[in-house]
Amino acid sequence: MSRLLAVGSVAIDSIKTPFGARERSLGGSATHFSVAASFFTEVGVVAIVGGDFTEQDEAVFHERKVDTAGLERVKDGKTFFWAGEYSFDLNTAHTLDTRLNVFGDFKPTLSPDAANAPFLFLGNIQPTLQRDVRSQSKAKFVAMDTMNLWIDTAREELLKTIAVVDALIINDAEARQLAQESNIIKAAKVILKMGPKFLLVKRGEYGAAFFSNDAYFATPAFPVEDVADPTGAGDSFAGGFMGYLAQQDHVDEESIRRAIIYGSVMASFNVEQFSCDRLRALNPEEIQQRINRFSEFTHFDLYPNMKSVNSAVKQLERR
Amino acid sequence: MSRLLAVGSVAIDSIKTPFGARERSLGGSATHFSVAASFFTEVGVVAIVGGDFTEQDEAVFHERKVDTAGLERVKDGKTFFWAGEYSFDLNTAHTLDTRLNVFGDFKPTLSPDAANAPFLFLGNIQPTLQRDVRSQSKAKFVAMDTMNLWIDTAREELLKTIAVVDALIINDAEARQLAQESNIIKAAKVILKMGPKFLLVKRGEYGAAFFSNDAYFATPAFPVEDVADPTGAGDSFAGGFMGYLAQQDHVDEESIRRAIIYGSVMASFNVEQFSCDRLRALNPEEIQQRINRFSEFTHFDLYPNMKSVNSAVKQLERR
Repeated sequence: MSRLLAVGSVAIDSIKTPFGARERSLGGSATHFSVAASFFTEVGVVAIVGGDFTEQDEAVFHERKVDTAGLERVKDGKTFFWAGEYSFDLNTAHTLDTRLNVFGDFKPTLSPDAANAPFLFLGNIQPTLQRDVRSQSKAKFVAMDTMNLWIDTAREELLKTIAVVDALIINDAEARQLAQESNIIKAAKVILKMGPKFLLVKRGEYGAAFFSNDAYFATPAFPVEDVADPTGAGDSFAGGFMGYLAQQDHVDEESIRRAIIYGSVMASFNVEQFSCDRLRALNPEEIQQRINRFSEFTHFDLYPNMKSVNSAVKQLERR
Repeated sequence: MSRLLAVGSVAIDSIKTPFGARERSLGGSATHFSVAASFFTEVGVVAIVGGDFTEQDEAVFHERKVDTAGLERVKDGKTFFWAGEYSFDLNTAHTLDTRLNVFGDFKPTLSPDAANAPFLFLGNIQPTLQRDVRSQSKAKFVAMDTMNLWIDTAREELLKTIAVVDALIINDAEARQLAQESNIIKAAKVILKMGPKFLLVKRGEYGAAFFSNDAYFATPAFPVEDVADPTGAGDSFAGGFMGYLAQQDHVDEESIRRAIIYGSVMASFNVEQFSCDRLRALNPEEIQQRINRFSEFTHFDLYPNMKSVNSAVKQLERR
């Protein structure tokens, strides 16, 4: 049984960046999320694909032991297709083409097993569908993503959905747009009043910030020198975050802070190659190395005169 | 004698933000820098003002015990004037008017005392002038700022100047422009090859990153809920940074990390009110409070099972 269920899109992307292009690139929020999360816990995916979705496309899920029982297959339909281009700064995707295909009729129904997964991630799909999935699930911790399209066109439905999840995981611009407030600290307060206990703001190359009614945490991103394709960065971040929490089976401020670091590291790998290629080749030691480097490059010691105490302690530990 | 010398502009600004406007606002890089630095060490300012510069304008320097012996006064000239407007997101200043006035003829000459200050900050002025000041100074640690204008119009002179300083303190966009490289990690490598030992990249509301040939440090910004006027944020950051280093009289990676936190805190205060108003009303306890909060909101504990060891140590300390 999966500990973490991911509902969202599985897509075929066509992607152009200043550093390359790929015509048929496996993508979608549920894909990047579940592959990233699979390094930490048992993950199940709920999504829809068409008859054009090949065994080769699906291979990554099996390699990563992601449960695809919830992957609905529409033989005579085509898989959700997205074509996008990134300009030189890699920060913004310009959509060239979107074809919903079978995704337009996606009505996710959870199996009893899927409904029992204690952690649930609602990837970026229509907010009414997200809420419907949430109501089918018995999860004890539910996080969701959304996008500018739904903030613009389905605001009322979106607000109802945000009200029934534990955590909202969105980017900077979406948070400002949702709250209609340019200052991110004020925007976070507005959003927390909408109902979720936690708000996680993704800042791309600048890192992430976490807000609750009584806590604040911020971190820079893991520095990545060679970004090949930013597609799925946000979903792999959410995957590392939720995967770690599901593994720990314990959600409090301390585990959330650690989960954000794990999420950041998974996103840093995801962007290094197209599609899920980098995560496919990843091993746990590499994750641990970046986690440790994270500690190192964010560390500062305000009271260096305490160092003697710390080194004394280390000597103590060694005994 | 000053431990830290600041060379740059003292200006009269006219500023509009979505939250207010001020017609005659004391500004300039040397102003924001030296007022911020004055909380940490003895600061001297080298700049030029016109006959319109009043005792009231100058009061903040005296309040903060900034040495104004190097403030050149041109009775029949007018002070450098800048008019700017910030749009809703407060990230970018749109220049409405720039009148160099006496600043156009600024040829800084250091007094023997000024030349002996061990720390020197070259605020954003024409790079040939910066280099001239650098050659007059006997400082053991020199940092400089610059701007897109000089990167565009005086690149060769700028490169010669960058080659003879210890640290370059610029913003994100300037670093990418200077290096002609959009990835900031790659850009940093290009810039370090230009000669400086250290590169400090200011990221506004997202924090700061530090690069040397063998070190990397990044931090988010101190979260500010009420930004009244972003003018001088970068200079007050540099002021806190250099002020702290001059106070410690010791530059290594550890002290630089701490200095970045101090700089971030000074910038967070500076933006809360127009001009130097917030820094004028600031006391050292308030600085210390934000420094401590910085530790708290950036902290994560990767190995929580070590907590027992830490608490054991604290008990040990108490004995």
